[in-house]
Amino acid sequence: MNKKAIALMAACVFLLSACQTKDPDIKETESVGEETETTSQLSGDYYSAIITDGTYKTSLNRGITLGLNSNVNLKAFETGLMDLSQSHFSPDSYYFQEGQYIDAETTSKWLARATEKNPEGLNPEDNGKLEPNERNPIYLDSLLEQNYMVKDGDGFTLGGISIGLAMNTVDYYTQKEFGAEYETKISREELLAEGKKMADKIVQRLRETEGVGDIPIVVGIFEQSTKDNLAGGVYISETISQDGATTVQDWKSINQKKVIFPTSGEESTELSSFENFKSEIENFFPNLSGVTAEALYTDDQIVNMKVAINTQFYGESEIIAFTQNVAEKASSYLLPNIPIEITIKSVNGTEAFLSRKSGETEFYTHVFD
Amino acid sequence: MNKKAIALMAACVFLLSACQTKDPDIKETESVGEETETTSQLSGDYYSAIITDGTYKTSLNRGITLGLNSNVNLKAFETGLMDLSQSHFSPDSYYFQEGQYIDAETTSKWLARATEKNPEGLNPEDNGKLEPNERNPIYLDSLLEQNYMVKDGDGFTLGGISIGLAMNTVDYYTQKEFGAEYETKISREELLAEGKKMADKIVQRLRETEGVGDIPIVVGIFEQSTKDNLAGGVYISETISQDGATTVQDWKSINQKKVIFPTSGEESTELSSFENFKSEIENFFPNLSGVTAEALYTDDQIVNMKVAINTQFYGESEIIAFTQNVAEKASSYLLPNIPIEITIKSVNGTEAFLSRKSGETEFYTHVFD
Repeated sequence: MNKKAIALMAACVFLLSACQTKDPDIKETESVGEETETTSQLSGDYYSAIITDGTYKTSLNRGITLGLNSNVNLKAFETGLMDLSQSHFSPDSYYFQEGQYIDAETTSKWLARATEKNPEGLNPEDNGKLEPNERNPIYLDSLLEQNYMVKDGDGFTLGGISIGLAMNTVDYYTQKEFGAEYETKISREELLAEGKKMADKIVQRLRETEGVGDIPIVVGIFEQSTKDNLAGGVYISETISQDGATTVQDWKSINQKKVIFPTSGEESTELSSFENFKSEIENFFPNLSGVTAEALYTDDQIVNMKVAINTQFYGESEIIAFTQNVAEKASSYLLPNIPIEITIKSVNGTEAFLSRKSGETEFYTHVFD
Repeated sequence: MNKKAIALMAACVFLLSACQTKDPDIKETESVGEETETTSQLSGDYYSAIITDGTYKTSLNRGITLGLNSNVNLKAFETGLMDLSQSHFSPDSYYFQEGQYIDAETTSKWLARATEKNPEGLNPEDNGKLEPNERNPIYLDSLLEQNYMVKDGDGFTLGGISIGLAMNTVDYYTQKEFGAEYETKISREELLAEGKKMADKIVQRLRETEGVGDIPIVVGIFEQSTKDNLAGGVYISETISQDGATTVQDWKSINQKKVIFPTSGEESTELSSFENFKSEIENFFPNLSGVTAEALYTDDQIVNMKVAINTQFYGESEIIAFTQNVAEKASSYLLPNIPIEITIKSVNGTEAFLSRKSGETEFYTHVFD
């Protein structure tokens, strides 16, 4: 599953296929007069996106994920849900479309606290307390909807919906406007229990939404990482509501974590291999300012690694030679057999990029010039 | 030659080869006790760099190219000289090392104006005039030295030197400290004549430098682009001094130019293909803020293209779908058979990157996450 996600992000080359479609006004089947293209896939690992009249259809609550704690959370929240969706909606027969059923106004209401005026609020009502351990925290920080479409004659029809719930492990709040920031910590247990209750309500509401009917609905609970964490969060539990069921059961927990090397890694083969790599390349230039990695673990096995190197360069020859050196040392020292992505940055932005996919022994290398 | 340069920058994957060496103090042959590695090549298009004791040896005038008008000039100045050098010092038998013969102090003297105290200054003496058309401009803005090494037993010995002269087309100056900036324009004719005179002096001085002897010296004259130009400069003339000659003759002019699409391109197949591509992808998102390309021409033929797309994204799904779309449209609309590099940036930096090498029909695509 994770390998697929990596492949999804690692390289996407697509061919064009244009289709004529039937009816513009009915959501379930797109649409007379419009021209619907898809970005059709070269490999079974990628979803093709639906493009209508040359234009990408953004979600009805576009931009909602920008409210997450960090950019890495945003990316993990979205790609993680595509990843989960793959085992239910195969990229071979399903096409991707951003969510078209939960609009921005509805999302705002759902993400807000429950009040008399907003009974739809999924977060708990304000109990009037201000202390971190006494107040009711905001559990649900963001909500993501993805649609998985299937071909239907010349058009596309809805084949599945995936919902991501981004839950807080820390709820950041202020006690007065522009005041200092306080934190309410939320345990994983509490976060899961709350997320599951919310999932029930969301599925029930979606079943009542026009066009959804008894379409399968996948729900994933995403544990958002904190603001100061270099790694994004992970999905920790998932389920699917089938046959028009209005509740969700049979949650399946997902054993995933992201570890930042060298700071938060425990002793392990992969940590020591990373440390050897780091010390080798730090020798190359005296002024290497940072070498870190984010390792993703599934069921306690490392499944991929993203290395970020920050440094200062005094010329292009240095960048080229350094990139060559990194490619060599990465091949020699980093774990074989897992996909690895390495980004080399300076104050001028991304200077070079290296990537090795699963099963490859050499790094693809590109120096930006 | 340009194809080689592109290949050089486009992808460099290297293997390790370690060598024992002999004598640390003699410049010409590296060096007892040190361990010299090279980044050995997988393809004849790339130079391997020499690495001594795991450390990259930077040039004696390190950082001097930072003084150029722009980062694109810096990159073009350095990689352009490697490119020129390839036809004289084949990457199959020569190894790259940054310049070890012209030190920082010497460089400063040479780049300064000639004065009584600094007779070595290559730029003309100050004639006391302040008007743009009356004063003596600074012709030579920067000087680059590269060493090309050959194997010699267990070590390496100097096999060739390449010198790049970065000439101003505009000399930016102030009439008083912290005053307004004025410009003296320099014609290509004048710039070439001055560059060639300087090349004679530099070769003569190098011949007197310990360790250089009668090593072949390549000199390239680089026409620096102006500060407001999105494209870097190009080398416009080159020569080689062989058999210990103390002057250079037989200059060979290089017919190269860089054109920014769509702003400065004249009507052409490549410009209209770019404009079609641009309008297709602009349709994809309403908020695409900039699509430009830098096209390199040699002998009036387009040899490569670098496309820069700046846009704002509201989520990761958009980035993925947009990248897929760009790959499709680039395949359909941009010129076939030339190498193309496409970078997609947002305020968060480089979001995605696409690359197609010469002879390939599909784009390699990577979305950063």
